Amino acid sequence: MNIEDRILNKTLLSKVTTAEEAAKYIKDGMNVGCSGFTPCGYPKAVPLALADRVKNGEKIRIGLLTGASVGRELDEALAGVNAVSRRYPYQTGKLISKRINDGDTMYQDIHLSQVAQQQRYGFLGHLDVAVVEAVAIMGNGGIIPSTSVGNTPSFIQEADKVIVEVNTSQPMELIGMHDILIPKDPPYRQPILITDPSQRIGTSYMPCDPSKIVAIVPCDITDKTRPLAPLDETSKKMAANLLDFLEVDQGDTLPPLQSGVGNVANAVMAGLLDSKYTNINMWTEVIQDAMFDLIDSGKVNAISGTSLTPSPEGLERFYKDIKKYREKIILRPQEISNNPEIARRLGVVAMNTALEVDIYGNSNSTHMFGTRMINGIGGSGDFSRNGGLVVMLTPSIARDGKVSCVVPHVSHVDHTEHEIHIIVTEQGVGDLRGLDPREKVKVMIENCAHPDYRPALWDYYNRGRKEVGGHIPILLGEAFSWHVRFLETGTMKS
Amino acid sequence: MNIEDRILNKTLLSKVTTAEEAAKYIKDGMNVGCSGFTPCGYPKAVPLALADRVKNGEKIRIGLLTGASVGRELDEALAGVNAVSRRYPYQTGKLISKRINDGDTMYQDIHLSQVAQQQRYGFLGHLDVAVVEAVAIMGNGGIIPSTSVGNTPSFIQEADKVIVEVNTSQPMELIGMHDILIPKDPPYRQPILITDPSQRIGTSYMPCDPSKIVAIVPCDITDKTRPLAPLDETSKKMAANLLDFLEVDQGDTLPPLQSGVGNVANAVMAGLLDSKYTNINMWTEVIQDAMFDLIDSGKVNAISGTSLTPSPEGLERFYKDIKKYREKIILRPQEISNNPEIARRLGVVAMNTALEVDIYGNSNSTHMFGTRMINGIGGSGDFSRNGGLVVMLTPSIARDGKVSCVVPHVSHVDHTEHEIHIIVTEQGVGDLRGLDPREKVKVMIENCAHPDYRPALWDYYNRGRKEVGGHIPILLGEAFSWHVRFLETGTMKS
Repeated sequence: MNIEDRILNKTLLSKVTTAEEAAKYIKDGMNVGCSGFTPCGYPKAVPLALADRVKNGEKIRIGLLTGASVGRELDEALAGVNAVSRRYPYQTGKLISKRINDGDTMYQDIHLSQVAQQQRYGFLGHLDVAVVEAVAIMGNGGIIPSTSVGNTPSFIQEADKVIVEVNTSQPMELIGMHDILIPKDPPYRQPILITDPSQRIGTSYMPCDPSKIVAIVPCDITDKTRPLAPLDETSKKMAANLLDFLEVDQGDTLPPLQSGVGNVANAVMAGLLDSKYTNINMWTEVIQDAMFDLIDSGKVNAISGTSLTPSPEGLERFYKDIKKYREKIILRPQEISNNPEIARRLGVVAMNTALEVDIYGNSNSTHMFGTRMINGIGGSGDFSRNGGLVVMLTPSIARDGKVSCVVPHVSHVDHTEHEIHIIVTEQGVGDLRGLDPREKVKVMIENCAHPDYRPALWDYYNRGRKEVGGHIPILLGEAFSWHVRFLETGTMKS
Repeated sequence: MNIEDRILNKTLLSKVTTAEEAAKYIKDGMNVGCSGFTPCGYPKAVPLALADRVKNGEKIRIGLLTGASVGRELDEALAGVNAVSRRYPYQTGKLISKRINDGDTMYQDIHLSQVAQQQRYGFLGHLDVAVVEAVAIMGNGGIIPSTSVGNTPSFIQEADKVIVEVNTSQPMELIGMHDILIPKDPPYRQPILITDPSQRIGTSYMPCDPSKIVAIVPCDITDKTRPLAPLDETSKKMAANLLDFLEVDQGDTLPPLQSGVGNVANAVMAGLLDSKYTNINMWTEVIQDAMFDLIDSGKVNAISGTSLTPSPEGLERFYKDIKKYREKIILRPQEISNNPEIARRLGVVAMNTALEVDIYGNSNSTHMFGTRMINGIGGSGDFSRNGGLVVMLTPSIARDGKVSCVVPHVSHVDHTEHEIHIIVTEQGVGDLRGLDPREKVKVMIENCAHPDYRPALWDYYNRGRKEVGGHIPILLGEAFSWHVRFLETGTMKS
């Protein structure tokens, strides 16, 4: 298919150019908002061309905003040449993560539902250029997103200039799968009239004033999705524990499900396939491989998210049967998919993963030993604060048992004891609803912690109860002693 | 006015009885949901009668649910005789707080918007009895709340039995000030169609099946509201700092304001009186004295909350001019006043107070030294996670300068670095929007911390940056050393 067939607004054909020419619109010090949420639907040719200019000696550092993490042609190419001075709101690449932790790149980790409005409110600086992967451009200038929506509609609205990468590797059959609505800002904001994940409230394209489009770049580089690890026993056990719990707790029907990214989430979806549940609704952020199995099984009513994030095989499978999957999948702006209004209204079951949790039910999902940024909080905080049932999952141990993921005191708090209802490990389920912190301790240690660490956790708590007392007995002098011990001796065991 | 004139459903007159008789419906082990949010609109006669039974040797311990804190005839009377086995979701009394910290009373500190739904979902146990202060009972059994709404409408709906205290000290002119809507639970929940704080969407009464009303108790005990301390210089300075900031940041109009309870909040409201702003809207939880001044000044469009919480003089002033104030004030269920949907839609400026904040922008508003529960998180988390501009206020020092309220690491996290935009002390304003944690440090130390503690905070950070590095440099071994030093030596200064 020719690029011209994807540009229905024929006056825009004059804007078709090379990635190198388009990248010239991006100058040192600019803020650039890109499409992309997970390694899907991000621009590829223009950022590669930009990185080449830096490699060739030009001094360019930009503020980079996206939906969430993106593929290597964007984050890694630019971080590799240290061209990112500032980054919002989430990332997963090795190079960009190193830049952030080394202090080369300033990074704020923002609740994903809030990024677009914070950008519009001016919290994140003026947006100079939007670089957007598209399937096609409509006659009215409207841009059809590809495999993710993220913050792209709002970036297009706000940026001074728009560069469109029309990606011919993305099938035209994606048209019709998106549902785009940009909420007005207060005091004009209106209710978001979604009461069921299958509802559509917007347009199939992202509105764009054609005069803002300064360049259109043909591109055929494919999404670099990440391979999926085979399901490990620990993840399977965690998923089984959660599903057993849900079957008893929720009975015959489940509220719409939100599920984080990764192996554990995939295991939960795989578990659902074998469960009694039918008419499953997902109100979530990312759509992973196992959800295609669920659709194939006929057990799904609707899956609403902001991004596909399948494995390479999953993406191939999706492309092959896109017409079938399109009937069940809706991709929305993350401002809608993660909106507190909808999470609260639908009463979603929010299922996210933690790095570590503590005996009082706080969770850390972002900072290793409180310090080293892994990826970011993502949408977990949007859903945990506002969902109807809030689940955090973590294995009980990591690093061959040398780390307990149930600790006396988490080294960074992303989700607080006030908002987490259920904690699941491969050991069991901790149902913390309605419990006092001192009651939570028993549940956390006996149901969730690894047996190897239970005596030491009890020892910490019992001494705290005796020596300090209070509603949440903390031994301030040794709250982080387990982390310190690991850093000094290579194990949390004493 | 006679009690009969307040009971319009005449078949219910047969239920009029004494507090002692009514209290007999409450038995050991029951869960009791009471009206009341702050020391306003809580039942008085029945809990006093219940406490008397315990004093006389009867063994009664109950689970006690309210809107938030309540007056001494409820929390303190029952805690005084150790009759509260379990308490949700917020409290301020000395005796109840001691019971909680001593472990006599199990307490979970729940985001206030979520209490009613968590009760309906079964997270907090079955509700046996609701005890409700009322101004009057309608012909259809509908109950008119008095000076607060809280969780009462939902408790009435859910409880097996309802006891009504018709309080003749509460003027009939309160009728018409409330707006009651109980959201349906998922999957039937609908959008809450409020786009402006002045809108009404419900009924003026709390619906109640008359057959559930087992007793009606006449009562004339007044609300025991708390006196207001005169505005201190520190609070005035904090308020001035915040208002100066808002005038520049927000320009000529303010979004609806949410404001926590207490002295600092009152100072902010007092400051608004002298500001350029008119047509002020409040979308908040509690309505305090200074808001009456704002109404008197003609600068207010609407004030929406779930409770009045004036001083004794403020309450008198309100009663005296109730018809005037009623035109501007709407009291709603806390499920609505604190709802994430509305906070997000209106883009409220959320202004709450912290016990301590840290250099990375986390805040602790509940647990002294991480351990001792003061009151609870209240609605601050509902507004901080979902508001449009999120402000935390704290003085820079406490206890005559022996405590720095800006610390290396907060000892309990209620509001995370992901959600706080602005931190205000009497020293200045820390604008953290868009900043990396390492950038936040400079702002927090130079703008917010007390000069006496700045060198030590810089020393902690600089050593962390050098020795540990990473996105959030934490010295795990000494993160809580300031708290420990205070507990050991009586000062955080070394």
